[in-house]
Amino acid sequence: MYFSLMIKIVILGAGNVAKHLYKAFTPYHDLKVIQCYNRKGVLLHPDQNPATIIQDLKQLDKADLYILAISDNAIAGVSNQLPFTDRLVVHTSGGTPITTLNDKNKRGVFYPLQTFSTTSDLDFNTIPICIEATAKKDEVLLEKLANTVSNTVNTITSKQRSTLHLAAVVVNNFTNHLFSIGNDICKEHHLPFDLLLPLINETTNKINRIAPNQAQTGPAMRNDSNTIDRHLDQLTNKNHKELYKSLTQSIQSKYGKKL
Amino acid sequence: MYFSLMIKIVILGAGNVAKHLYKAFTPYHDLKVIQCYNRKGVLLHPDQNPATIIQDLKQLDKADLYILAISDNAIAGVSNQLPFTDRLVVHTSGGTPITTLNDKNKRGVFYPLQTFSTTSDLDFNTIPICIEATAKKDEVLLEKLANTVSNTVNTITSKQRSTLHLAAVVVNNFTNHLFSIGNDICKEHHLPFDLLLPLINETTNKINRIAPNQAQTGPAMRNDSNTIDRHLDQLTNKNHKELYKSLTQSIQSKYGKKL
Repeated sequence: MYFSLMIKIVILGAGNVAKHLYKAFTPYHDLKVIQCYNRKGVLLHPDQNPATIIQDLKQLDKADLYILAISDNAIAGVSNQLPFTDRLVVHTSGGTPITTLNDKNKRGVFYPLQTFSTTSDLDFNTIPICIEATAKKDEVLLEKLANTVSNTVNTITSKQRSTLHLAAVVVNNFTNHLFSIGNDICKEHHLPFDLLLPLINETTNKINRIAPNQAQTGPAMRNDSNTIDRHLDQLTNKNHKELYKSLTQSIQSKYGKKL
Repeated sequence: MYFSLMIKIVILGAGNVAKHLYKAFTPYHDLKVIQCYNRKGVLLHPDQNPATIIQDLKQLDKADLYILAISDNAIAGVSNQLPFTDRLVVHTSGGTPITTLNDKNKRGVFYPLQTFSTTSDLDFNTIPICIEATAKKDEVLLEKLANTVSNTVNTITSKQRSTLHLAAVVVNNFTNHLFSIGNDICKEHHLPFDLLLPLINETTNKINRIAPNQAQTGPAMRNDSNTIDRHLDQLTNKNHKELYKSLTQSIQSKYGKKL
């Protein structure tokens, strides 16, 4: 192996991804987060040694890996400002190509396919990690790191990662918006949204067992135009009405031939 | 109490709702499914006594409650054909008013707010039951039944149930369609859909902890037009492209003022 048994890591950023990565790395003896950089100098974890937090890029020590766990539009800028060359620098973004990183350093991607929030206590082992690197030996290091913290590691291209990110937006951000519309409908009629939670949970449980197109049911699927018309009448919000129509049409055009 | 300690029940229908109700009722000594009616004469459970299955409505015995666990468009017809009057007859449909039942009998609704499939092994206790009855004493019986099998029982009107059913279509049927689009995108690019499951599961877990409008993230939410444009370029299916646009617009119009 070209790298020492211990991987020395620097995490740049102080958002949810940075915090979750810090927490995921600390239990392992062969991973060591030697420094964390963020402009405000905040700790990523209450137990972290404050001496390891730096607020100036010039103070960055030598490490095997620098992880830019920062917002997509900050990646190019921070990677340009790094005061060293020929070291391995990765970002954690689904929608950003590897080439956004400045090529004065060795480039890579360490993309955990998950939504991170301050409130969640995730089991990092279950999170798929998608890695990419321009050099094989860098890929080997990222693979070792990913395999240490996760059971699912995939080496994919920037193009594949961009596709996955698109699919992730559909199943995560758009799904959450549907939940939010369900919430609005309940609120408007003074019904508790909590009544829908068991249904929502089972909707998700189901596609852990069967493919989503096998699980499709509902008025659109069975061409029940009476119910569809009644629902459209009930919807008072113009956006909700339009979305109901588009989703119904999309379901009908997908399964239409089978009816 | 006007009814005996034991509630004698007849289940009509042989679909998933009928089967899940049968299974939910059997553990309780004060509930007895005395007969099941369906045209094909199938058992609702392998352990069921075949002598309790009837295929002719004329063979229906006297019971405290007849549950029509049948498709929405069969409710009126079967309720008309029942060869008795003044007994309590309920349906299990979210989208069907109580008045669809023939008023020669006492009418009610027993609506379990859940999606039922053959493959699932649901904990019935967690399923919200929404009940409705035209007479108070019938409501008391349905309440007793519902409280026996579930921890969450609500008495609601047909109008409220119709609203809940609309919200259920949005968070269940439409959400599943988004999962299916995510699956299609992965398939087209030879990526395993399973990579998205931890994200999907966490999306749902999150709204069990925080309100969905608090959980909203993504390119639409942060007005990230670069990512939105790239995603629209990547989508090859016309319907998917239209849906991506409508959902993005809906998110932006909902949260626009906060940006």
